[in-house]
Amino acid sequence: MERIVCKFGGSSLAGAQEFKRVKEIVKADPRRRVVVVSAPGKSKEEPFKVTDMLLMCAQLASAGFRYDEIFEQIANRFRSLCLELELSLDIEKLIDEVNQHISSGASAASCASRGEYMCAQLMADYLGWPFIDAADLFLFSSETELNEEETYRRIKERLSSFEKAVVPGFYGAMSDGTLTTFRRGGSDITGSLLAAGLEATLYENWTDVPGLLMADPKIVKDAKPMRYMTYPELRELSYMGAKVLQEDAVFPISKTGIPLQIRSTLLPEDPGTLISENGVQSGVVTGIAVKKNFRVFTLEKTKMREDKGFLRKLLSVFESNRVTVEGTPTGIDSVSVIVSEEQLTGKLDKIMEEVRMYCHPQRLTTQPGLALVVVVGKGMIRKKGVAAKVFTSLANADINIRMISQGSSELSILVGVENEDADSAVAALYETFKGE
Amino acid sequence: MERIVCKFGGSSLAGAQEFKRVKEIVKADPRRRVVVVSAPGKSKEEPFKVTDMLLMCAQLASAGFRYDEIFEQIANRFRSLCLELELSLDIEKLIDEVNQHISSGASAASCASRGEYMCAQLMADYLGWPFIDAADLFLFSSETELNEEETYRRIKERLSSFEKAVVPGFYGAMSDGTLTTFRRGGSDITGSLLAAGLEATLYENWTDVPGLLMADPKIVKDAKPMRYMTYPELRELSYMGAKVLQEDAVFPISKTGIPLQIRSTLLPEDPGTLISENGVQSGVVTGIAVKKNFRVFTLEKTKMREDKGFLRKLLSVFESNRVTVEGTPTGIDSVSVIVSEEQLTGKLDKIMEEVRMYCHPQRLTTQPGLALVVVVGKGMIRKKGVAAKVFTSLANADINIRMISQGSSELSILVGVENEDADSAVAALYETFKGE
Repeated sequence: MERIVCKFGGSSLAGAQEFKRVKEIVKADPRRRVVVVSAPGKSKEEPFKVTDMLLMCAQLASAGFRYDEIFEQIANRFRSLCLELELSLDIEKLIDEVNQHISSGASAASCASRGEYMCAQLMADYLGWPFIDAADLFLFSSETELNEEETYRRIKERLSSFEKAVVPGFYGAMSDGTLTTFRRGGSDITGSLLAAGLEATLYENWTDVPGLLMADPKIVKDAKPMRYMTYPELRELSYMGAKVLQEDAVFPISKTGIPLQIRSTLLPEDPGTLISENGVQSGVVTGIAVKKNFRVFTLEKTKMREDKGFLRKLLSVFESNRVTVEGTPTGIDSVSVIVSEEQLTGKLDKIMEEVRMYCHPQRLTTQPGLALVVVVGKGMIRKKGVAAKVFTSLANADINIRMISQGSSELSILVGVENEDADSAVAALYETFKGE
Repeated sequence: MERIVCKFGGSSLAGAQEFKRVKEIVKADPRRRVVVVSAPGKSKEEPFKVTDMLLMCAQLASAGFRYDEIFEQIANRFRSLCLELELSLDIEKLIDEVNQHISSGASAASCASRGEYMCAQLMADYLGWPFIDAADLFLFSSETELNEEETYRRIKERLSSFEKAVVPGFYGAMSDGTLTTFRRGGSDITGSLLAAGLEATLYENWTDVPGLLMADPKIVKDAKPMRYMTYPELRELSYMGAKVLQEDAVFPISKTGIPLQIRSTLLPEDPGTLISENGVQSGVVTGIAVKKNFRVFTLEKTKMREDKGFLRKLLSVFESNRVTVEGTPTGIDSVSVIVSEEQLTGKLDKIMEEVRMYCHPQRLTTQPGLALVVVVGKGMIRKKGVAAKVFTSLANADINIRMISQGSSELSILVGVENEDADSAVAALYETFKGE
């Protein structure tokens, strides 16, 4: 049985109009059998996300304050939805249940999850499909740790007997029934795990943007969307700061080779971005991303290479300080270590001291303010002229290069520039490659 | 007192004509006070190097064979020199002394050193300068290990009282008087240590080529010489296979900041190449070199970065197998290790096995046949357009790029290409940068 798992984000569920649009989309393809919903988000009419309001309620309740004014807003939002969509479900009973859950002293995460819980019940009623509680599928072994094996077993066992189903995103339960939520990735990860567990044909992630853009729209206005992409490309771009699905949400489907399509409910005819294992080659460069605020440590030591353990000793200093090393460009008598500045808070002096102690460099310098710009495209490094275009583009834009590297994966070129040149670099590269 | 240490190579001392040229050069600048000589080398008239003939004598003698025929050739060569240069020294006494040294069962190294010993005595006589035996200056703590501290002390103490001196290159003595030679660098290292010990103004290295060439003349016919260069540039080029002074010979002067000038006795008016600490910027690119036969190991492992010790563990495998790692280009979920193939003889399977065992990669591949082409120029990486030119040049020459890296030192760009493309890459880059 062909099965598409569709996940709809909060902005696609903000009001009755949005619910109607979702229904149209779902009904348009009979393979769309599993719908995952977030909690209703912001819209022109609604200034708050339901989840944020629930968190406020939980906070007030746990401190012993009244939360009824805020809760009433949440309740009214769901009441209006039922009214406008002419739903038959007993909304007052549902609202009471959630209110009692909050007042019973449930954890903040547990309270926050009730937005998805209610939303999914409304959507199930609206579509005329069964509601399957995420608490019965997603088993957490602790507040933060999912028991993946058992979760997949339950998804297979309990969900595959249903031809259609609506599942709330974002949460699961521990073995004692206590609710908890995914720390990173939210409802996206729910959909991804369902798609993987059901061996779905496709995981559709419906948002309010027409797919992934070739560059950050804050830097490049009207950046064009990418039609096709591979998982390794996605990962490279997302690691380097592109706003895409949270990594944990991509992992289950990329691991099982299920394609992911990111589409916009506002443009349901638009194919959005299709991400798959091997992809369809559309352009030379798939995307451009940038991450700022790296710091470079440079060690100079003559005949460094004769000490075969030099690099290992150097890396062990960063490891023991729990700092992830981004890269280690190596010269003949020098080596640099690139790390993100944020990891170094309160550790810089200690690391400098330890590097001096264990590695005895003749010279040790450190420089902040490096931005890493990544140009991603499957196999681009082997394509004649691509590297030339990258550097000609940067030269024409008057950008000084501090560093060049290229991932071992042959799908990206990494260029280090000054923080303040980073945006111009992205803009220049976008202009160069957008037409290809 | 300004002092230039001049070292003359074997081809600059092959016959009487060459001796005359050396004298002219030495006398042309009164600051040239210390002359270091190699043993007479090959020339049109002389098919053998004196050193090689001495080694043959030593070999024959140690096996109990007669060596007089070969020794007579050596003797005659020095006799002719004395005759043609009208020297007054007792050449027969010198020849006898060396003959007895060989027949006494001295080591091969000790016998080989007698070429420099005799040559320096002739040169001292010809210039009218004192001969200072290297055995009294260069103290070895073992057959291969120089006692640098004591050597510098002796150079300062014994040599600085002489206004002029001729010193034989290549050898020194252990504390019991046994002669031994420098394993790498030969007479070049003698001159370098003398220059450093005497805090000379300049170390002149006179050869038969007009300085260092911008690219290997075997690849680029008529490659032009470089006028200026810095020590770090020299080191980068020499490490990457450019034929220049042996590294051990450069180290003493580069460490003390004494400039090195490489000049040709055939073109004494030509300034050759001047290498100094900071250099004089002449062109954007100083030189281009290539080293072939590297092997790349590529590991893929999802979420590799979450294991902060991953890279360290990987490097420790190579370290424990005593393999020097050239570089570690790092991607998001993958890392490559570049090592020279020659180091891997008999170790490849073991290393692959250990990498699998300690690092648990999802995928481990290895590929031979990588050549590393280096483009060297101080500060070039920050210069607008240089990187663009490098890659445009390679693209126009139809060369596929396998890897890009850039030394942490900002003075080079390293490009990995297939072995078979390496020469075309050097030629293309030379054409691009020769005019700048």
